[in-house]
Amino acid sequence: MRDFKWSDSEKMIARRVSDAALARELSSLLTSTKNYASEATTSDDVWALHDFLTEKRKEIDHKYDYRYSQLIFVFARLLREKWIVESDLEGLKEEKLAAISLLATGLKA
Amino acid sequence: MRDFKWSDSEKMIARRVSDAALARELSSLLTSTKNYASEATTSDDVWALHDFLTEKRKEIDHKYDYRYSQLIFVFARLLREKWIVESDLEGLKEEKLAAISLLATGLKA
Repeated sequence: MRDFKWSDSEKMIARRVSDAALARELSSLLTSTKNYASEATTSDDVWALHDFLTEKRKEIDHKYDYRYSQLIFVFARLLREKWIVESDLEGLKEEKLAAISLLATGLKA
Repeated sequence: MRDFKWSDSEKMIARRVSDAALARELSSLLTSTKNYASEATTSDDVWALHDFLTEKRKEIDHKYDYRYSQLIFVFARLLREKWIVESDLEGLKEEKLAAISLLATGLKA
């Protein structure tokens, strides 16, 4: 994977798309947490919720990596996990879109 | 603190009292978790719940120490935290009850 250069306008797009995806993911996590807890009936369910949140926290901390060298991979993953759609990335150069799309497809396998 | 000998009947009482206290504490934790989650409105609240559960899990794992050398301290703490009352300990020898009571009072300070 080549090292892409990010223009200022692309950096702005990247930040906006990442922030929006993170907000969506956190909102979904809030909903899951509330559902999980409302259905809990035993202390085992409480510990399972704790394990779930530990895992999610680690995953989210790791996933949103704003280093420009990582952004292609970040967006490919967000695409695959459906936190973003391809049209969110409009404004990025064609070579980046192609690389993201290719990686997202590859990651599905 | 002297090293108490535990008779078989005292061991049975100790186990029953510990198990009951743990069940009470876990039931209370389930209720707190459900309330916490139902009142959560942001992802910060989700992470605060996660921190709370991490702390509680550590605390509970540490607190219920069934080694006989530790039981006097365990019961003193449970008494102080009101997970048990003195009458739960009926059947233990007077010297143990006195030590537990003394420690529970000391721990309050």
